[in-house]
Amino acid sequence: MNTASAGKYRPVSAAVIAALQQIVGEAQVLYQDQDQLVEFSHDEIPGTHYRTMPEAVVFPATAGEVAAVVTLANQERIPLTPRGAGSGLSGGAVPVYGGIVVSTRRLNRILEIDPGNMMITVEPGVIANDVNERLQPYGLFYAGYPMSMETCYIGGNVAENAGGGKAVKYGVTARYVLGLEVVLPNGTVVELGGKLIKDVTGYNLVQLMVGSEGTLGIVTKVILKLLPRPKYQADLLCLFRSSEEAVAAVPKILTESGVLPASLEFMDRSGFLEACRYLNESLPCQDCGAMLLISVDGFEQEQVEKDYDTIGTYCQNAGASEIYVADNRADSERLWKIRRSIPEAFSLASKLQSGEDVVVPPAMIPLVAETFRQIAVKYGVSMPCYGHAGDGNLHARITPPADWSEEKWLRILPDILRELYAVVKSAGGRISGEHGIGHKRKDYMQCVLSPEYLELLRTVKKAFDPNNIMNPGKIFDC
Amino acid sequence: MNTASAGKYRPVSAAVIAALQQIVGEAQVLYQDQDQLVEFSHDEIPGTHYRTMPEAVVFPATAGEVAAVVTLANQERIPLTPRGAGSGLSGGAVPVYGGIVVSTRRLNRILEIDPGNMMITVEPGVIANDVNERLQPYGLFYAGYPMSMETCYIGGNVAENAGGGKAVKYGVTARYVLGLEVVLPNGTVVELGGKLIKDVTGYNLVQLMVGSEGTLGIVTKVILKLLPRPKYQADLLCLFRSSEEAVAAVPKILTESGVLPASLEFMDRSGFLEACRYLNESLPCQDCGAMLLISVDGFEQEQVEKDYDTIGTYCQNAGASEIYVADNRADSERLWKIRRSIPEAFSLASKLQSGEDVVVPPAMIPLVAETFRQIAVKYGVSMPCYGHAGDGNLHARITPPADWSEEKWLRILPDILRELYAVVKSAGGRISGEHGIGHKRKDYMQCVLSPEYLELLRTVKKAFDPNNIMNPGKIFDC
Repeated sequence: MNTASAGKYRPVSAAVIAALQQIVGEAQVLYQDQDQLVEFSHDEIPGTHYRTMPEAVVFPATAGEVAAVVTLANQERIPLTPRGAGSGLSGGAVPVYGGIVVSTRRLNRILEIDPGNMMITVEPGVIANDVNERLQPYGLFYAGYPMSMETCYIGGNVAENAGGGKAVKYGVTARYVLGLEVVLPNGTVVELGGKLIKDVTGYNLVQLMVGSEGTLGIVTKVILKLLPRPKYQADLLCLFRSSEEAVAAVPKILTESGVLPASLEFMDRSGFLEACRYLNESLPCQDCGAMLLISVDGFEQEQVEKDYDTIGTYCQNAGASEIYVADNRADSERLWKIRRSIPEAFSLASKLQSGEDVVVPPAMIPLVAETFRQIAVKYGVSMPCYGHAGDGNLHARITPPADWSEEKWLRILPDILRELYAVVKSAGGRISGEHGIGHKRKDYMQCVLSPEYLELLRTVKKAFDPNNIMNPGKIFDC
Repeated sequence: MNTASAGKYRPVSAAVIAALQQIVGEAQVLYQDQDQLVEFSHDEIPGTHYRTMPEAVVFPATAGEVAAVVTLANQERIPLTPRGAGSGLSGGAVPVYGGIVVSTRRLNRILEIDPGNMMITVEPGVIANDVNERLQPYGLFYAGYPMSMETCYIGGNVAENAGGGKAVKYGVTARYVLGLEVVLPNGTVVELGGKLIKDVTGYNLVQLMVGSEGTLGIVTKVILKLLPRPKYQADLLCLFRSSEEAVAAVPKILTESGVLPASLEFMDRSGFLEACRYLNESLPCQDCGAMLLISVDGFEQEQVEKDYDTIGTYCQNAGASEIYVADNRADSERLWKIRRSIPEAFSLASKLQSGEDVVVPPAMIPLVAETFRQIAVKYGVSMPCYGHAGDGNLHARITPPADWSEEKWLRILPDILRELYAVVKSAGGRISGEHGIGHKRKDYMQCVLSPEYLELLRTVKKAFDPNNIMNPGKIFDC
């Protein structure tokens, strides 16, 4: 627990527990039992450094129950931490100051599928992948595609403005969030936006809420825009001799090919090898230093074939040594499973590591990737890279040699990060493209943002949450 | 001038004028000369009801000059009104409390075209259409397409989150705004966002700023995302016997055809006739009660032809009596010129009228259009309709009979509006889709938004602008 500011908050007393039980029912409040609480002390960040225990966890089932919990916590000055599936990578769902974790696990209904407006209304605890499963019969799809789609909740996607594999063509979560029901830090329930494609009736509070990491309120309902589901998809796996060659091909494909791929993913050798080992999979990869996994989709088979031919030619001209096409669902899923498993595979490989999520102007990717490589050499760490190269969003997984102690690692890591982030800043970039700031990155915000910018963020936070009870200790300190 | 709150502000004294002249140069400050100032007392709302005179107008040429003007005004408690081309339709650029109008006319440079990142950086005074003219040689385009594109400024598009003709496929201005330089109400200059496709490093202040109508700051630089320019476009003009038939076709095209048109515009008979009269144009329209103007675009001619065939078939099945195809730039521009001229044509036809901009879930358009028709009959007014039917954004132009006095009109109009807006609210809609609230619609915000929502908007405003000097009297009263 972050003791510096914890003094501002009151503990979760027996009276508060009783009040919580009154609101959500006895069975829906966890407290005291550390074995039960520990699940809510962490997200998917490897290691134990960013963990803190909650004092209580509640599982409300309605917006009204959420509002009652929030009202109570605001009156009692108890910190609240909203939590989805806990699949985050920046500590957003970790209760830094203890207090109450508000799980959205029971807010898990798909409330309405509205094909006439091409929209779906869901509660925040719905699993991202389930949305698309349910939409199959309608010929529609939700274009969000976070790598943790099989487990993550829509609410978490909204809170973090999740990106993922299809952002090149389809944009990130934000583009599809049209309406939100939110419980504000004072307990008020507001409906922001609606089933509207356009709306300038007041400030865009929907988009202010998206990506605010649960610091401005708890989302209890989400209206998502849907698209007609493309009938055809194909994936190209393009093998390059080196990372440099692979990343250099990316801006060319995007700006010159005339084809906008649905996905454009980069994996260096250590990334795909680690994932294959984890999955007991194999890929054709002798002499291969890096891969691009590129998807194209559309409504006409002929067009999709033309598109992957075009992209294949660009990759060949950019030096690809081999290109494989997956044009059926099984092959496609096999490739994507490898890509999606990289973070998990790395997490198991070592407890000491830092997963980075930098984002830069897409054309800067080759330069930034090369400078990262040099920094890794300088510090004697390994830094496998993978990620959404088409968006300028690079995941670097900094890992120390096996003989470093945790103490040494934690001492040196900040220096490495500051050097990486200085490169990112000078490239016009930012420290998180899709994982969020949480408490993992908040001390580094000043590496890329001016004091005036940070002050403005705090001003907004204070306007919404003057008592700083809503997910405190995330993004910045107030 | 709105005298109720004017007492809070200080007048623009001789000393303030001298200070402004010091900042921007003597030639760049207008004051006293009413003939010069009157241009800045209004936007394109017909009639004189929403006009107020500024005390001074300044023309800064740099962000530094804007910052100095804002700092001065904030110290002196003088209201500021940012102004682009003055082509707005909600009074956003009108100086409700007098004070200083800050024109962006001289902030009119295209600062950088960056084809490698597919982005362009412009100052706010650049005319929307000029962006695309300058992009011609690059095979890129900016997808914003407001109807006033030949005169409006990018800064105004950002302030109002302009929609326009291509939002069905390409979304509104907001989707393309990646970065902003903004002078905050306290005179601080901040850079929000950047050349980034994704970014979750702090709250999404870029999107909070877009559409905030100049009430949270003055934009001095804009980074816009570009797209590869489609090589082929075709427009279909589909004639229907009635408005009911035409609007009923819209949701079917959008959800069933499998084609996402770039534009899907609706014009009723009085709309296209008025525009044709104004332009001295003619259209084939005997027995035609309404038209849909539908554009498709793409990179393959064959695909575009297939797409307009598909949509043509849908329109025929929905009852279209005739369908014309414009597949060359001259014919296309002729049709679009008619569509774009409707507001101007109506404005000349009568001084007493109210241009509405309601937005509803797209599938609700037929029901809402029919109810509007009934309300028009009830009040004995005419209410021609046109607009972006594909987005659920309907422009109704309420016009009284020729024998109504202005006094009668202004007395009855609020009743008509409240009745229209009640229909809109019950359809899940809002009172502005793209024109903004300004001071024209602010008294009607409560028709569609809850008191809690309005309070939240005010809270945000106060956080940014505690002295309420930045475009006060717009969106809501503080």
